[in-house]
Amino acid sequence: MSDADDWRRVAGLRWHAQGYASVHGDLLARMRAIDARFVQWAQAEAATDYQFAGLMPLSDLRRAQYLQGFPHLAVFPATLAPDPSRLRGVAATSTTTDTLDLPFATTCDSILPPAACFGVYAALRDTSLHAPHIATTCCTCYRNEAGVAWLRRQRSFAMRELVCVGTREEVQAFLARNRERVDAFAKALGLDAHWEMATDPFFEAERDPRQLAQRLDPLKHELRLHGGLALCSVNDHRNFFGEGFGIDRDGMPAHSGCVAFGLERWLYACIDAFGDDCRAWPALDAIA
Amino acid sequence: MSDADDWRRVAGLRWHAQGYASVHGDLLARMRAIDARFVQWAQAEAATDYQFAGLMPLSDLRRAQYLQGFPHLAVFPATLAPDPSRLRGVAATSTTTDTLDLPFATTCDSILPPAACFGVYAALRDTSLHAPHIATTCCTCYRNEAGVAWLRRQRSFAMRELVCVGTREEVQAFLARNRERVDAFAKALGLDAHWEMATDPFFEAERDPRQLAQRLDPLKHELRLHGGLALCSVNDHRNFFGEGFGIDRDGMPAHSGCVAFGLERWLYACIDAFGDDCRAWPALDAIA
Repeated sequence: MSDADDWRRVAGLRWHAQGYASVHGDLLARMRAIDARFVQWAQAEAATDYQFAGLMPLSDLRRAQYLQGFPHLAVFPATLAPDPSRLRGVAATSTTTDTLDLPFATTCDSILPPAACFGVYAALRDTSLHAPHIATTCCTCYRNEAGVAWLRRQRSFAMRELVCVGTREEVQAFLARNRERVDAFAKALGLDAHWEMATDPFFEAERDPRQLAQRLDPLKHELRLHGGLALCSVNDHRNFFGEGFGIDRDGMPAHSGCVAFGLERWLYACIDAFGDDCRAWPALDAIA
Repeated sequence: MSDADDWRRVAGLRWHAQGYASVHGDLLARMRAIDARFVQWAQAEAATDYQFAGLMPLSDLRRAQYLQGFPHLAVFPATLAPDPSRLRGVAATSTTTDTLDLPFATTCDSILPPAACFGVYAALRDTSLHAPHIATTCCTCYRNEAGVAWLRRQRSFAMRELVCVGTREEVQAFLARNRERVDAFAKALGLDAHWEMATDPFFEAERDPRQLAQRLDPLKHELRLHGGLALCSVNDHRNFFGEGFGIDRDGMPAHSGCVAFGLERWLYACIDAFGDDCRAWPALDAIA
């Protein structure tokens, strides 16, 4: 499946060369069945279900220091400068051109979500917890990826997350429990996938102290298909978001951790394992 | 509920003054129950289920002539110009400022979906149909609204659509059938809502022949709460998208029509009808 056009063999898939995919019919039902498994685990954790807006305020994101680490990956909701003659110009050009040079207004108060879990910390900001808070959400995420590949690396993709905010021990136990669930599910599917330590793709990584911290004390582990594609990441944030968002747990900055799934990647893993015709796949909800 | 801060009384709601809302817990379960009703109707129509990407190629959108009619409402996925010193500048400013002046790259090949149904015509483009194609999808839509109000007018919101592509008669029957379903559901909920003719908010409406066409021959009807807020729109596109996207039905440009629901607005209608505490609402799936 190395050819860029191989997606055409997959019924129900439409890949856009701009870097994202649409899914329909039986294949979409399969993608939902995969996600339903992750939701089951969230329900077993009595997780609160969140649906975040399709935009996130920069005032929330600032607490996560995201733009300090990843300005090169950020995608913003830009509108056109409200000048009637320029709007008329865009309207006219748009009838013949598919890549536009646009007179954007440069002022911006929001970002397209780069990850699903930030919304959870934002929802809890400046609060004190007296029990762990476990959350789940599925969010369309946006990243300015330099290279793209259908279902595997997209500029827009669906991310399911399970999140725990609590004490260090609560978070570590949550991450260990769910890593085991992921492991058992991947094995039951027969995927050739193994856990590896990982770091985030920081902008100018050598300058960012967080990259160094991730290397000294591994806080991120990824389940990688055939040693490459990360299907799931298990992340221990320690008290980074607790401090940033002002969330306390019994008087101390809360710890947090998340387990994140790229839904298109899991769909790819199933295509890779079971073939291009999803009607011939085993019933995913019957897999233990 | 005129006060901008009234949303605070609604458990499970977080309104962002930037123009969008997050929903969680019981309130989210209610929003899903409302959507489940619309999905039931789609299933009764044997609709194909689509999940479109979080971005849409301008090459698809061009066929819908959207930017000709609505450049002022369009929202684009903008990234930062890939200049290390400017990226460093954004990273630095982002630590202290919540409204950023951003050095956007101006070249753009995609748009944030302004409506859910465009993806259906794009999926069918340059094909010949020999039976009606009925589709459903739920999509986060983006519009550069001049004014915002929680759950009622948002810059990002969830739109469920039921779409029919077929002959003129097939589309008209589909729209009539589903308008009746909407009507019965709104009555069963006890909403003070009535149908009114409507037009789309074209840029420089007096110059756009489509606005004139909509006035001469009403193609859009909205179910309005208390005579104002549009909860649902029923749209007869005639062969506009069939021609634009090259979709034939038995050798002629196909007709199309859609029934669109703003999910946050339906949630608002229920808050308005049943109160701020959604745990006290009637069971929505029991309402005939």
